[in-house]
Amino acid sequence: MLYQQSGVDLRGAQEFVEALRPLAEQTYSPQVLQGVGGFFGAYALPAGLKEPVLIACSDGVGSKLLLASQVQKLGQIGLDLVAMNVNDLLCSFAKPLFFLDYYATPKLNQKQALEILEGIVQGCKLAGCALLGGESAQMKGFYTKGAFDLAGFCVGVVEKCDLPQIEQIKAGDILVGFKSSGLHSNGFSLVRHLLKTQNPPSHLGNQSLLETLLTPTRLYGHLLHLRSKIRALAHITGGGLVYNLPRILPPSLGAVIELKHLPRMPVFEWLKSLVPLEECLQVFNMGVGMIAVVAPSDFNALRAAGGFYLGEVVLSSEKIQFIGGDHGI
Amino acid sequence: MLYQQSGVDLRGAQEFVEALRPLAEQTYSPQVLQGVGGFFGAYALPAGLKEPVLIACSDGVGSKLLLASQVQKLGQIGLDLVAMNVNDLLCSFAKPLFFLDYYATPKLNQKQALEILEGIVQGCKLAGCALLGGESAQMKGFYTKGAFDLAGFCVGVVEKCDLPQIEQIKAGDILVGFKSSGLHSNGFSLVRHLLKTQNPPSHLGNQSLLETLLTPTRLYGHLLHLRSKIRALAHITGGGLVYNLPRILPPSLGAVIELKHLPRMPVFEWLKSLVPLEECLQVFNMGVGMIAVVAPSDFNALRAAGGFYLGEVVLSSEKIQFIGGDHGI
Repeated sequence: MLYQQSGVDLRGAQEFVEALRPLAEQTYSPQVLQGVGGFFGAYALPAGLKEPVLIACSDGVGSKLLLASQVQKLGQIGLDLVAMNVNDLLCSFAKPLFFLDYYATPKLNQKQALEILEGIVQGCKLAGCALLGGESAQMKGFYTKGAFDLAGFCVGVVEKCDLPQIEQIKAGDILVGFKSSGLHSNGFSLVRHLLKTQNPPSHLGNQSLLETLLTPTRLYGHLLHLRSKIRALAHITGGGLVYNLPRILPPSLGAVIELKHLPRMPVFEWLKSLVPLEECLQVFNMGVGMIAVVAPSDFNALRAAGGFYLGEVVLSSEKIQFIGGDHGI
Repeated sequence: MLYQQSGVDLRGAQEFVEALRPLAEQTYSPQVLQGVGGFFGAYALPAGLKEPVLIACSDGVGSKLLLASQVQKLGQIGLDLVAMNVNDLLCSFAKPLFFLDYYATPKLNQKQALEILEGIVQGCKLAGCALLGGESAQMKGFYTKGAFDLAGFCVGVVEKCDLPQIEQIKAGDILVGFKSSGLHSNGFSLVRHLLKTQNPPSHLGNQSLLETLLTPTRLYGHLLHLRSKIRALAHITGGGLVYNLPRILPPSLGAVIELKHLPRMPVFEWLKSLVPLEECLQVFNMGVGMIAVVAPSDFNALRAAGGFYLGEVVLSSEKIQFIGGDHGI
């Protein structure tokens, strides 16, 4: 009885590590003391920090992966993976330092694995972090046909005094939206269900529906330079505006959002035609991938960076309210 | 069309986060500035480090998970998850700081999820690290019946001058083995295949076979105190002695292992009766979970900590050789 007979390809796994090494090295700076392939990755903390706080995030891409896999478009799913993690990390105002991935598959497929890795490397370059390590697991019997999984972990660093100060948020603060590139990586269980049951259009505007749905998650790294003007950031991820914005509001304060300010995007128009608006707001980002809470005097600086007025912070026991018609969506 | 209809339980996910918070908090020290439940976890780096190097590892438990799930013994799989990561981390001589988990399941099962989390918390306590965050994903359509996945991610810190110095390894250095608690979390695809095809015994000695197979992975944290006497550590994980020991040997040096020094353990006796020895050495730890490379003058200090003589480092182009009979196994 040999290991290969049980479906695990050890030699293939070794070859894969050798093939990914030069890819990962494209993301390395002199801070990286040991990269992929060893028992651990080692990253020298930048010098000169006074009270460094390490920030860590973990996220996957949910079932966007399954859709991308079904249509053989995996090149960008790695970019989604990095973006989902780095956008969470940005909410702490941390600079991303390094990223690790976990890739689990019933049987190692080098071509697929390297395609995904290239997307991860592209994401790490965009985010300015090193792909320091990862784990590839071969798990026969776990997955349905064509399925596999992908998770990411990201670590960054921020000075303690630069952490967001949620307790400074006041009634009258402005909620500034930043446009998403589309669905990002959330709500795909529902989207896939709709694709199966609702006779979907082949195109939304000029773009095929699938291309629109699989648009990579936007990275909001440019907001890091504006951190002195931002009280807090909310990444609009699984749970939509309804569940994510309240996560950064202190007790006794709530958010009022004017629906007319939500960007009009074909993908959300299509979803609204099939799913009640209240449900959409709990599942999808509805065109807003990141929300900054700012003092009114800082609004213009954020607008110059692409932000738009979305609503205000109010004294309220209701954590989130939506007002006005939704003509703008 | 509602999200719940597509198989995702958002309310359940929120309740799960609330239920796991007090569990995670059992692992917190004042260094933890933000724990589970937010967009990110925040951990204040201990003060007083001169040249801190961050160490990161990522690992899963492979298909040990599926076996544990089939026999409804998930309480200790979280402990395996932490141990697999922390043992990798130890090879850098880093002190573990924090851990994050990724848990993906077709449908959230609170009872199962909390059972696993309790094991993770137990592992974090043993390793002295904080459960700083994690991600729980509900991914309908990905998994075969009863399957789900679990990955871990661990970060530690070490002074740059304390990193292992592999280039100091010399011919004549001693290879010191530390006993494993059993299979740890590797080789389970083969073990599961054997269980299905080879009419396995119900017991090995006094213990049921399943209990023996599922014995939690041992943690080797006590070796951290001996780091000044150790040149390098190799965690014997997927790929067995054959693939893991060479990872820490400089070019031109190889390892010679005397088979008679491998511990005699019932689980490996059983495996050897079904799988050729050469294959066993490439898949299982064969009773040795960690190997330290030490100067001969430091051997006694390691022996006092439970280590045993396994072999030596030699000048050789062959990275690993096994000599002698295997009566000792």
